[in-house]
Amino acid sequence: MNTVIQNGLLLLETKAGFETKMADLFLQDDKIVAIGKGPEGFQPEQVIDAKEKLVMPGLVNCHTHTYMSLFRNLADDIAFDDWLFRRIMPLEDKLTPEDAYWGAMLSCAEMLKTGTTTFLDMHMFQGKTAQAAVDTGMRGVISRGLVGEGNDAGGAQRLAEARAEMEQFLDCPNLSFRLGPHAIYTCDTDYLQIVLEKASEWKLPLHIHLSETRNEVEQCLAKHGKTPVAYLNDLGFFDHPTVAAHCVHVTEDDQKILAEKGVFVALNPKSNMKLGNGFAPVKAMEDNGVALCLGTDSAASNNSLNLFSEMNFTALIHKGTGEDAQAVSGQDVLRMATSGGARALGLNCGKIEVGYLADLVLLDLNRPQFCPRHNLPAALTYSANGSEVDTVLVGGCVVVEQGRLTMVDETELYRKAQEALERVQR
Amino acid sequence: MNTVIQNGLLLLETKAGFETKMADLFLQDDKIVAIGKGPEGFQPEQVIDAKEKLVMPGLVNCHTHTYMSLFRNLADDIAFDDWLFRRIMPLEDKLTPEDAYWGAMLSCAEMLKTGTTTFLDMHMFQGKTAQAAVDTGMRGVISRGLVGEGNDAGGAQRLAEARAEMEQFLDCPNLSFRLGPHAIYTCDTDYLQIVLEKASEWKLPLHIHLSETRNEVEQCLAKHGKTPVAYLNDLGFFDHPTVAAHCVHVTEDDQKILAEKGVFVALNPKSNMKLGNGFAPVKAMEDNGVALCLGTDSAASNNSLNLFSEMNFTALIHKGTGEDAQAVSGQDVLRMATSGGARALGLNCGKIEVGYLADLVLLDLNRPQFCPRHNLPAALTYSANGSEVDTVLVGGCVVVEQGRLTMVDETELYRKAQEALERVQR
Repeated sequence: MNTVIQNGLLLLETKAGFETKMADLFLQDDKIVAIGKGPEGFQPEQVIDAKEKLVMPGLVNCHTHTYMSLFRNLADDIAFDDWLFRRIMPLEDKLTPEDAYWGAMLSCAEMLKTGTTTFLDMHMFQGKTAQAAVDTGMRGVISRGLVGEGNDAGGAQRLAEARAEMEQFLDCPNLSFRLGPHAIYTCDTDYLQIVLEKASEWKLPLHIHLSETRNEVEQCLAKHGKTPVAYLNDLGFFDHPTVAAHCVHVTEDDQKILAEKGVFVALNPKSNMKLGNGFAPVKAMEDNGVALCLGTDSAASNNSLNLFSEMNFTALIHKGTGEDAQAVSGQDVLRMATSGGARALGLNCGKIEVGYLADLVLLDLNRPQFCPRHNLPAALTYSANGSEVDTVLVGGCVVVEQGRLTMVDETELYRKAQEALERVQR
Repeated sequence: MNTVIQNGLLLLETKAGFETKMADLFLQDDKIVAIGKGPEGFQPEQVIDAKEKLVMPGLVNCHTHTYMSLFRNLADDIAFDDWLFRRIMPLEDKLTPEDAYWGAMLSCAEMLKTGTTTFLDMHMFQGKTAQAAVDTGMRGVISRGLVGEGNDAGGAQRLAEARAEMEQFLDCPNLSFRLGPHAIYTCDTDYLQIVLEKASEWKLPLHIHLSETRNEVEQCLAKHGKTPVAYLNDLGFFDHPTVAAHCVHVTEDDQKILAEKGVFVALNPKSNMKLGNGFAPVKAMEDNGVALCLGTDSAASNNSLNLFSEMNFTALIHKGTGEDAQAVSGQDVLRMATSGGARALGLNCGKIEVGYLADLVLLDLNRPQFCPRHNLPAALTYSANGSEVDTVLVGGCVVVEQGRLTMVDETELYRKAQEALERVQR
């Protein structure tokens, strides 16, 4: 289908930074095909009026666990180990695939309505998450969450299931898959090596939690005599394309490894604070050339999946930790949440440029937080809250219109999610 | 007028914490007169349906500079001294009263639309801020910003103007006034003493910036041989009811003074980070019994006036600084933003209780961030973003309906604010 988005102010990323420009935007099927002037003989079948709107690339959430939105506000103000092992995992054990589907649907709804068009998930019920992405119209990169010890049957079975589930979605253009070994404390060395073999064989990139807590680092040092980053590097883990979530407790040497191996680090500042894990050394990572992107983590430790809020935190907290108002600029953060995230996932989205995927968000500029309109790229990081999202396109399809999902009955969705939680809690 | 708010879920504050309860709420003129069952013979003239809505007390913003919303996103990623003295003050010099009015109107619009019903302002154009509060229907506590040296004519004139301007608003029930000596580095000792005399004579409480930057503390130690808190205490400043904004760099001894003298500390975490000033020791202040409330500071250093965002930051950042997931609970923060703020301003609002002012906010619960509905008090701090605000009442009058201001044309307001900025920048 041919689409034109008219009268909008486009957010463009140049080498010098972000800027805005009034121009029409021309889409053919799922791609941007022209900016300003349409291709010769272009006949639009769909016209979207973006008057008084900012047209920006959809945000990319590079670390979340969608099904966990069911556990939103269920366990607050408690520490990581209590949170994970005593509160969250016992509930996870009771989840059915149907529950997980409604949790994932709820997450997709929240993400789309706050301008996120793509997410990287880690999850047991990989197929249900994929289905939720399809049913809401989101772009999803789905990692089967994997835990295991050596050659245990469970670990092998999870890999086999992962492979089988992926094959059910081969014809979905908006989906891709990864392997998601959960962390070095839930996968032993032998199992990690099996996962790496399968990743090579199936040509799948990786997604892992890394150096999230002090405990994890200390246990790894005690057991392996090296940091988690050095340990994985020595295993050849980073020879595979990898998104490493968190990286809160990373040394200078760790950062150099991450930079050299081209590992994409997904920052999750709100979750890291909420669980008492501290602040990732973002300014140092920037200085060391580590590739950065943003994630929300799950709504059980955030407690929202709103990347505008995550941008706001990322741009502000490092100015606090170092008492340095110039640390981690608004422009840097906006890049992490758009083109940085797209690069981390190997997708040609996250930018308004010819040839890129038409994953686009139209924001209503008639809001006090955008007034006066002086520096809109700064306003996206420092002033917006995500509620300005009016229209969202994923691969050229309108999936949010006037702030409402187009493919799903939201009220029904919230009811189903509520019922799922109540079932799990019984 | 008699009003009933029906079918809503009320947010109630008890000694044990916040809880929600389905009940009708009865208002007479500007007060809450009954909860659950109406007074005998109560005839409602206004019925508000709060089905699927949470009814909560309006938030109280205890430190802002409303006119400065004109400077939103004008000077980002730069340090405090550069920001204040080189970027903001030269623009302030060019502001007309008319510009200041539209800046204040813009701020009131943003605050009301995100659930704030009361604000404490510090400002040169006190009368224009007061007028903006009246014109939007907000409750305002307005402090004339004062700077001066000894017996200089300017300082005395500013005090005289302050007094004269207040008198024009004596018949406005939603307004009260304070004196706002700007800071110890912009008012010398002699002038502070003159301000204190006038505060006694006119029975006005105080509002000051305090221990905001390391520079301020170091200069005070060098000049007076004591911290800013000790210096003001020795002047008798805290014998007056005081809201002290910031208090980022306060010692244990300072905190004990603040607690003992009943000073209300208005935390402004986002502004403190943005300007590279660091983190206030909130957990220590709580432990030392300091009375805490929340402010946004101005949109020139925040860059929004959204107290939901400020609550989210306040509840999260101290879990990061101390790597302690239990530090500064969601419930504590919700109290700071409601009844804590009301106490700081000496107002009987900030709680849903019989006899309290009917400053109320109705939030739409049919949002993904409120689903599942498990612990709504936690959701207010950890999940909400302020966009859930549907209806706002101040003193029983509906000033926001379906998310729109009732007393003001918003589009016209944004246009006027834009024009004001453009005039100042010329």
